[in-house]
Amino acid sequence: MSFHVGACQGELRDMTSVWAAYQDALGAIEGQIKKGVDSEVPLINQVAHYTLSSGGKRIRPLLLAISARLCGCADQNAIQIGGAIVEFIHTATLLHDDVMDDAKVRRGAPAARSLWGNHACILVGDYLYTLAICQAARLESVAVNYLFARTCGKMSEGETLQLMHNDDFDLSEETYLKIVSYKTASLLSAACHLGGILADVPNAQQNALADFGQHMGVAFQVADDTLDYIADGKRLGKAPGQDFREGKITLPLLHFLRHCTPAQRQEMKRLMEDPSLSSAQFSEIVRQMDRQGSIAYALQRAQAFATLAKSALSVFDDSQDRQSLMTVADYVVQRDH
Amino acid sequence: MSFHVGACQGELRDMTSVWAAYQDALGAIEGQIKKGVDSEVPLINQVAHYTLSSGGKRIRPLLLAISARLCGCADQNAIQIGGAIVEFIHTATLLHDDVMDDAKVRRGAPAARSLWGNHACILVGDYLYTLAICQAARLESVAVNYLFARTCGKMSEGETLQLMHNDDFDLSEETYLKIVSYKTASLLSAACHLGGILADVPNAQQNALADFGQHMGVAFQVADDTLDYIADGKRLGKAPGQDFREGKITLPLLHFLRHCTPAQRQEMKRLMEDPSLSSAQFSEIVRQMDRQGSIAYALQRAQAFATLAKSALSVFDDSQDRQSLMTVADYVVQRDH
Repeated sequence: MSFHVGACQGELRDMTSVWAAYQDALGAIEGQIKKGVDSEVPLINQVAHYTLSSGGKRIRPLLLAISARLCGCADQNAIQIGGAIVEFIHTATLLHDDVMDDAKVRRGAPAARSLWGNHACILVGDYLYTLAICQAARLESVAVNYLFARTCGKMSEGETLQLMHNDDFDLSEETYLKIVSYKTASLLSAACHLGGILADVPNAQQNALADFGQHMGVAFQVADDTLDYIADGKRLGKAPGQDFREGKITLPLLHFLRHCTPAQRQEMKRLMEDPSLSSAQFSEIVRQMDRQGSIAYALQRAQAFATLAKSALSVFDDSQDRQSLMTVADYVVQRDH
Repeated sequence: MSFHVGACQGELRDMTSVWAAYQDALGAIEGQIKKGVDSEVPLINQVAHYTLSSGGKRIRPLLLAISARLCGCADQNAIQIGGAIVEFIHTATLLHDDVMDDAKVRRGAPAARSLWGNHACILVGDYLYTLAICQAARLESVAVNYLFARTCGKMSEGETLQLMHNDDFDLSEETYLKIVSYKTASLLSAACHLGGILADVPNAQQNALADFGQHMGVAFQVADDTLDYIADGKRLGKAPGQDFREGKITLPLLHFLRHCTPAQRQEMKRLMEDPSLSSAQFSEIVRQMDRQGSIAYALQRAQAFATLAKSALSVFDDSQDRQSLMTVADYVVQRDH
């Protein structure tokens, strides 16, 4: 407790201080996550615990913890439950994503599907969605139930939209941003929004938190999509170029396709469809995109969304919690590059 | 409305009369199902509508409509929403089941995954779960939210338990019944239970409806598992012997394995693992099981669960609605054989 207060006295302008300042709340959420997975079917607990402890940073629980404290929420129990909800939903999507992407590795370790197979991962994903909804029901709030039902809906809509536009070289930036906004930002937004709902602050503040999370979430995913081109595999926890190899058109590539010559476009199509694309070939693609300014463009767009996110917080007075959210917004576009 | 009253005057001892007696409620539920699928992502609507209109009998909405009327529920809007909830959940499981089973055909038509692929079916399954939870939130009842969250949890637990015991020749009847009870009966039970919750009848009556649905659901699945051995493919809407070919140990086989010779057991194992098992070989398996009394045993067990289901209804006075539930319980063990 003394640590908790002490850390709050800092400026919270770097992520290490931010993580430390909410350590108590995050510890309690961690306990809830562990306790919450309690199926009588051993395989479910095994797969769920493995995936839940595979090194995720708990950014969604952190956002909830900050937002809740920013709004003066005193209900620690509700924050714990809320933190478990967002992490269960996130983990459910990871399990289903890995099945759909035939992923072998997740965060540098074998993906659950490599160990237990696709069937178990589909089912445990379903189970974790359910667990989230079960925990949401415990909060006995219609607003919370709606929030998560709507959020999960948006997430599957975003993923489906992405699937529809796989290999689509004519994908517009508008549709790309919609995909990103639905599949990724909606849950980050819900985590922030929930803090405001639990504290029962006025709508203007709840909406500001939802908007912050939404813009920050887009910044997060755009940065992530760019990292897939420029980060080294060790830091990424997976081979770079995975999105490209899977035919996912993300912002850097989208920019390149809009500015390259027809011959370059043709060549890009050929390379994307080549199952034996070498890492040297992929590096050459990245060099070309970099020369075209596509990497810089994508990072700039991510930065713009982070700025938009921060500006949404202007309805709140300055405080250490508000500063923490701003630090998170900066972090998501600056990590690893 | 006049038809509705008229049909209620009959004895409702056959399914045709039962379906007719609840036609108004079922029509309204059908409208809600169609209206409820309204994503801005066209692929989701396409896959969802295709699967929702692929000839399912709507037994779950029917059970809700009967239970609600039995309990005197006057809230037609809630019944509509409830009917859509149970059908959305059921359809979500069908989509995920077909992916896991590599099913090519469902009810005599191409399975959705044959037309749109596994990825779309996983995502649209997720979306339909979400849609169900969204509709449940509209009922603004903590009891309803819990009911469906718990039910979906049980369903994935049942499916996972089944997966764990695939090819398990030592599966006990107790575990088999648990699988069946979780994966199938829990949703049929929830459909009946919901009628009581919506009408706000005393707990004893709510529990009686839940018990009825639970036992009836086990009867339904045990009969279904037996049909996989004895029905002809045309009636089944899929090739017979599918469970056997997939290594699913169901009650008739379980009985046979308990009573056959070690040599027969060995031979059964070999046949189950044979990917080129012919339909003549499968017919011979069924003949052997029939001689051993395994088919009769399974049908008898299904019948016993139907009887148990009907006896749960003794807390209700005799009425046409109670008679309808009894007719459904008889029907699920008698259809097609």
